[in-house]
Amino acid sequence: MSMVDSSHGATSPVVVALGGNTLLGRHGPWTVDEQRAVIERTAGRLADALDAGTDLVLTHGNGPQVGNLLIQQEAAAETPQLPLDVLVAETQAQIGYMLQQALDNERPTATETMTLVTQVVVDADDPAFDRPTKPVGPFYTEREAAAKPFETREVSRGDRPYRRVVPSPAPVDVVEADEIAGLVERGNTVICAGGGGVPVVRDEGGLRGVEAVVDKDRTTQRLATGLGADTMIVLTDVAHAYVDYGGPDERPIGRIEADALRDHLDAGEFAEGSMKPKVEACLRFVEAGGERAVVTAPERLSAALAGEAGTRVVP
Amino acid sequence: MSMVDSSHGATSPVVVALGGNTLLGRHGPWTVDEQRAVIERTAGRLADALDAGTDLVLTHGNGPQVGNLLIQQEAAAETPQLPLDVLVAETQAQIGYMLQQALDNERPTATETMTLVTQVVVDADDPAFDRPTKPVGPFYTEREAAAKPFETREVSRGDRPYRRVVPSPAPVDVVEADEIAGLVERGNTVICAGGGGVPVVRDEGGLRGVEAVVDKDRTTQRLATGLGADTMIVLTDVAHAYVDYGGPDERPIGRIEADALRDHLDAGEFAEGSMKPKVEACLRFVEAGGERAVVTAPERLSAALAGEAGTRVVP
Repeated sequence: MSMVDSSHGATSPVVVALGGNTLLGRHGPWTVDEQRAVIERTAGRLADALDAGTDLVLTHGNGPQVGNLLIQQEAAAETPQLPLDVLVAETQAQIGYMLQQALDNERPTATETMTLVTQVVVDADDPAFDRPTKPVGPFYTEREAAAKPFETREVSRGDRPYRRVVPSPAPVDVVEADEIAGLVERGNTVICAGGGGVPVVRDEGGLRGVEAVVDKDRTTQRLATGLGADTMIVLTDVAHAYVDYGGPDERPIGRIEADALRDHLDAGEFAEGSMKPKVEACLRFVEAGGERAVVTAPERLSAALAGEAGTRVVP
Repeated sequence: MSMVDSSHGATSPVVVALGGNTLLGRHGPWTVDEQRAVIERTAGRLADALDAGTDLVLTHGNGPQVGNLLIQQEAAAETPQLPLDVLVAETQAQIGYMLQQALDNERPTATETMTLVTQVVVDADDPAFDRPTKPVGPFYTEREAAAKPFETREVSRGDRPYRRVVPSPAPVDVVEADEIAGLVERGNTVICAGGGGVPVVRDEGGLRGVEAVVDKDRTTQRLATGLGADTMIVLTDVAHAYVDYGGPDERPIGRIEADALRDHLDAGEFAEGSMKPKVEACLRFVEAGGERAVVTAPERLSAALAGEAGTRVVP
């Protein structure tokens, strides 16, 4: 059940977190054909890395996808309304299936890509449970929101400014980490921990799903550190993190030592819910012994692996 | 990509197909708490077998679950409408997650249960594609049905007697069979091929999902034969198959040789879409070299493994 020892073998995979733009593109709504086209483009870039001999463990986000499942089941009140943990699991297979098939088609003679349902343990006493912050699912009017059996918050303007908010606790342990390590040793490309993992707490009864979402970059770091990976890569829609992003002195960050990056973080350079969690995950990875953590765009993946692109965080 | 050689090792798992009643109970609608209670009861029976030293590979049905996903996404037309192959994948994680967690909680010190997204290759020239027979998803009025972009058929009475019908082609090959065998060798309990597997065809572009459903008992047989399993068990809501089921001479079938069972099958003793596909899968398994195939209810699983319960088909 625990994280694997980092000395388990010679295999050190690169753990890559796939952001929403690598799966859906930047703008919705997304037909399945549009989703397939974006996923196939991403698979092509991942295949280049695999062809170069890099073992990959792939994680991914699921924000729009889990939001759509919430919207859909609310729209069909006569069907069972499943809790958020179950819906997160569904998105792991929805996205994993499409990505797995695209990767196998890019490399038809290679060992298969596997998609695993992945649970992540969070602490039942995590302070995040006292203040839900993460908006999910449909937008509601004030009256609709007040009638819901869950916490809502006004998050935008217009007629329907309310959304459900859920806690975003810290990931403690990836339940299936040993199995992921075993599949990597067998040469499989593993897709796992989608949406940050299915959040569960561990109590006297064992594991139990909770209504929460875990930040996918944070879970990716826990997994990468536990697997003893040398390199973690966070793929997003920009080629670098920036200092003074959008301002007059905007400049991309290339290779940077962890201490210097933490100074930028502490100075408030990175946007909440966007670049900040990625930078924090990179810092945690390097500070836990990782050799480098990279933030870049998918088209720069091979260059990033060669040490020639992206924001590259080193100890 | 091919079925594994049956001589791969000493490990010969028992492959168990879980019917709808082992996951949802007999009567809907099913709240998530009701689903959990049924799944936990099933997990208790599976845990007894695991505790007795039997390795298990678990498959399962998904009829009501995939139907609900179709109903839900149609009710939210503003969200992406995903094809049936993607929805089948989602049900694999929905059900797999709940079952995996329940099994791990029954046996907290054991090696983990894993849920794999599983694709099953079907033949693009399968005659089933010419005559869709399997009803799925919402019920429609005649007018609604006529406006749908897919084939519908009148399958019941009342105001909304129409449903979409999709083909049910034969399974040819379980794409992830090698990985399933590898996980069994590592001692994992594997949940896979849910809903009969995600149906895909293989063409010059590789694998491609198709709008179809594959019979879960038939896929279970392909998988069990490919894994070199000695025993396949189909769990359903009756303790045996019967001769003259519901008639004046009803009698349960206990231990029976394949030839004798085939005579009953040919005489029309088993109901279409219910006991018939289970009996056919058992016959195929034994005729392909399996030692025994059993149809029984979940509460008889341990007795069935001991050769003391269920309809036990032998060569």
